[in-house]
Amino acid sequence: MSFSLHGIPVSRGIAIGRAYLIAPAALDVDHYLVEPPQIEGEIERFRAALKAVQSELERLSEDLSADAPSEVGAFINVHTMILNDAMLVQETMDLIRTRRYNVEWALTEQLERLSRHFDDIEDEYLRERKADVQQVVERILKALAGASSAAALVDGANGDARDEMIVVAHDISPADMLQFKTQTFQGFVTDLGGRTSHTAIVARSLGIPAAVGVAHASALIRQDDLIIVDGDHGIVIVDPAPIVLEEYSYRQSEKLLEQKKLQRLKFSPTQTLCGTKISLLANIELPEDARAAVEAGAVGVGLFRTEFLFMNHKDRLPEEEEQFEAYKRAVELMGGLPVTIRTIDVGADKPLDAIGAEGYESAPNPALGLRAIRWSLSEPQMFLTQLRAILRASAFGQVRILVPMLAHAQEIDQTLDLIREAKRQLDDAGLPYDPGVRIGAMIEIPAAAIALPLFLKRVDFLSIGTNDLIQYTLAIDRADNAVAHLYDPLHPAVLHLIAFTLREAKRAGVSVSVCGEMAGDPQLTRLLLGMGLTEFSMHPSQLLVVKQEILRANLPMLEKPVADVLAAFEPEEVQAALRCLGQV
Amino acid sequence: MSFSLHGIPVSRGIAIGRAYLIAPAALDVDHYLVEPPQIEGEIERFRAALKAVQSELERLSEDLSADAPSEVGAFINVHTMILNDAMLVQETMDLIRTRRYNVEWALTEQLERLSRHFDDIEDEYLRERKADVQQVVERILKALAGASSAAALVDGANGDARDEMIVVAHDISPADMLQFKTQTFQGFVTDLGGRTSHTAIVARSLGIPAAVGVAHASALIRQDDLIIVDGDHGIVIVDPAPIVLEEYSYRQSEKLLEQKKLQRLKFSPTQTLCGTKISLLANIELPEDARAAVEAGAVGVGLFRTEFLFMNHKDRLPEEEEQFEAYKRAVELMGGLPVTIRTIDVGADKPLDAIGAEGYESAPNPALGLRAIRWSLSEPQMFLTQLRAILRASAFGQVRILVPMLAHAQEIDQTLDLIREAKRQLDDAGLPYDPGVRIGAMIEIPAAAIALPLFLKRVDFLSIGTNDLIQYTLAIDRADNAVAHLYDPLHPAVLHLIAFTLREAKRAGVSVSVCGEMAGDPQLTRLLLGMGLTEFSMHPSQLLVVKQEILRANLPMLEKPVADVLAAFEPEEVQAALRCLGQV
Repeated sequence: MSFSLHGIPVSRGIAIGRAYLIAPAALDVDHYLVEPPQIEGEIERFRAALKAVQSELERLSEDLSADAPSEVGAFINVHTMILNDAMLVQETMDLIRTRRYNVEWALTEQLERLSRHFDDIEDEYLRERKADVQQVVERILKALAGASSAAALVDGANGDARDEMIVVAHDISPADMLQFKTQTFQGFVTDLGGRTSHTAIVARSLGIPAAVGVAHASALIRQDDLIIVDGDHGIVIVDPAPIVLEEYSYRQSEKLLEQKKLQRLKFSPTQTLCGTKISLLANIELPEDARAAVEAGAVGVGLFRTEFLFMNHKDRLPEEEEQFEAYKRAVELMGGLPVTIRTIDVGADKPLDAIGAEGYESAPNPALGLRAIRWSLSEPQMFLTQLRAILRASAFGQVRILVPMLAHAQEIDQTLDLIREAKRQLDDAGLPYDPGVRIGAMIEIPAAAIALPLFLKRVDFLSIGTNDLIQYTLAIDRADNAVAHLYDPLHPAVLHLIAFTLREAKRAGVSVSVCGEMAGDPQLTRLLLGMGLTEFSMHPSQLLVVKQEILRANLPMLEKPVADVLAAFEPEEVQAALRCLGQV
Repeated sequence: MSFSLHGIPVSRGIAIGRAYLIAPAALDVDHYLVEPPQIEGEIERFRAALKAVQSELERLSEDLSADAPSEVGAFINVHTMILNDAMLVQETMDLIRTRRYNVEWALTEQLERLSRHFDDIEDEYLRERKADVQQVVERILKALAGASSAAALVDGANGDARDEMIVVAHDISPADMLQFKTQTFQGFVTDLGGRTSHTAIVARSLGIPAAVGVAHASALIRQDDLIIVDGDHGIVIVDPAPIVLEEYSYRQSEKLLEQKKLQRLKFSPTQTLCGTKISLLANIELPEDARAAVEAGAVGVGLFRTEFLFMNHKDRLPEEEEQFEAYKRAVELMGGLPVTIRTIDVGADKPLDAIGAEGYESAPNPALGLRAIRWSLSEPQMFLTQLRAILRASAFGQVRILVPMLAHAQEIDQTLDLIREAKRQLDDAGLPYDPGVRIGAMIEIPAAAIALPLFLKRVDFLSIGTNDLIQYTLAIDRADNAVAHLYDPLHPAVLHLIAFTLREAKRAGVSVSVCGEMAGDPQLTRLLLGMGLTEFSMHPSQLLVVKQEILRANLPMLEKPVADVLAAFEPEEVQAALRCLGQV
């Protein structure tokens, strides 16, 4: 019987193949109390399992081929950090010692505590790291049970059929993803996950179609079912009718052809048909991602998120040296191309401090609370440390500082004062930096877009963060499933704020980019070009498809239809105007 | 030694007097396990205490003089409801029976559980009802201990000095507030509380200066200390220097004179110096508040919040009849003047459902989640019930329906469809309503203000909710102490959105009011008049002071300075332009 399931599209393309089901790790463990004399033996059993997993991760890391996506290596590092984290190791040992739980019980109990705290985290990227902790725990449990990993099980599958197989799982650990990589699967479907879960990030970097958050997929799909994964729309069709299969096969071959054509665009200059030069920049999350940015032909990093710095730290950013090394690494990998480093954009809920801290209370509405620059300004020593580290990296290439969540004149002024102070401190210490480093502001709060003159007078460049701008303009938390359907980048209010920002910045001669997801959506490229955008920053995987749209665009011809889109308010009028724009 | 403390100004005016300290209720109760044969005796002890508190509340309610503020009576009703709530009574009994806790322990344990759930509530008004539950529990504990109430203790104080006394307490229960009323205290200072805590609401209705949320006041101030309460600024000055005392005495007598003058304005028509008629409407929270609205000279209710309906219900609104009676009561009390009833504005976190429900999870950002009209549209049967009840009340006077949190065209259309459906259902049932009832939308999300044409085409009137509009425009949760200082009604972006909404609505011939706190701030009256506002809706206590500003205003003279305010972006320019406006 044919049926279809709907999830979140996270990696574009169409995959057709047989379902390869991976059973979820058995978290249903035995619970028993250990007699006091046996406690140290139980601890020893735990230590042995930790050691086994450590070697497993090291082996995986060594086996990483040079061309493996940088994301995969980064995830293995994250897992190694988690494996050595006191919150996981020490607290579990405490549970064994004080409550006499057996290792498996203590470990799953501690996992549950950690999970609860992760759920409170505002930042989407960090919140999804919960899955990483879960997978590390699963790995330890497997080591305790002596079971082989999911990927190892796959090794036993029919090698010939493998390239026609689509992995279906409750969730996939990054290390397993890595092993799948060398085995060239067609696609990925998971019950769990979101846009920034590791399966999503790695699938995009591998260019393999994937749908995640497809609830109950692993329960409803049977081993060897023929399935289609539509990675553009997040749809999984199980046991498709012949005519559906034919249609998708056709679309798949068309897409493959398209992709080959796209690769040829890599080295051509990015300019419109009418000759306007456009800058395509990359959004990156880890220093190593800079490699993928260069490979995709980005002319710089438009947004280097620094939230990764929290990864191995409980409540604060790492020391200046560690930050400096990370920023410098990205700057060096970009080989002279500009790198825009955004100062820390998480909340005062200090995400990783929360782990294991009982009685921790988060803000009632973290998205409207003490986060990003608000938090940085309330913790000036921490902020100065980050600013010094960024400034020091500017001695090794072209660095720009980008400040998130600004909305008030005094916030901008305080930030600029602190940057001057950081420079003074470096002068005193005799440490080099680029004195001309440019300072920019994210435009992501409605007040910032509306009161733009406050920014134009004070900063060197602007970057529109469409994700948050949409969230606040519509008062919709897109991470909240109950209202996510109302999150609409094409709401006329959103389009007006973006168009207004682009127009006013241009008039004032201040350069402006868009770094939210709208920049990477090829369906919106003409609209943004028509509004006057000349700097797009996006995930490296989107660069070529957006570039293709740019190469085909003729700016004078976009003027009228874009003006029509902006003059429209009724949804059907906006849609009609967008259709016209698509046909120009 | 003179020192001053800072809190939240909740009731205007200056009070000078001696501190009268009320010790906090002793929640530090004995904990012991009851032997099984004694359990029923323990339950009996609990029942007797409940009965004693019930009679105490009934006696208070009967003693209410006819001119007592309606708020006080309403709070006694709320306390009676809580006293009979199964969440409090039944669950406490269960704790006694199953865990063998003594009554006091069971009661404080249950209070703690309830408190945790209240903390998760998004709606400020409902969240502060936690204090009511606390006070009911304190009353029961006192009954168990046989102690007399705080107010009764005051009875023993020196009667002559009483009118010079200022009550200083950790928190004050509404019933105690009522007894203080007949004893004419000069002012109130509490450690706890916010703008919508009962002490604040009752103090405003009594016209007694009050500062709440003055942390540690009851610990730092000693019995009989001479103190000044500046209710305009939330400042408490302890043991003031003679020159400070003199200054405040002078300001106090000036204010009293001012107040007497204000009372004379009650019956004069509300119009500017140049003859433009202005409508002053009241915001009310309970049907009985309509009385205060009429007394203060309001020409209608501009905002009747319906969140009170949740008071005695766990997870839904009450049945149609109960709602209908409540709306009809307000409509009848207004005697033909218009009553604008806002449909329910709480979140899907279903606040009172949460009480006692373990494992309850709230949205990550409730302010950006499924609340207000979003929740109503997701629960059409509940919404239709409310709409029918409102429509039926329209047969008894002038009723208008106001819909909160709209931002999308399809939301407005769905709402209008459901209102038509509610009318059809009433037609079928042969129940009367006003077929011409007017439908309005709150403008409180930035997208609504920016995409105003969507609203102007669809609704009969608009009401700008400045509190939420500021919150979303600035991405600041003003209930979050960490960022409350960034909540700024004078941010140029906020002023632009309000001015734009007023101008466009006027141009389209759609009537528009402002019902957020800005409408009740006399310092902003000229600014709003100059922007073209002709309908102000506010707490009844603010009506006369705003009216005085209106009577003095000359619209043509406001044009230039208001244009200057709107042309300014820099904070100091906005402030300078506002100063000019104040001197016109």
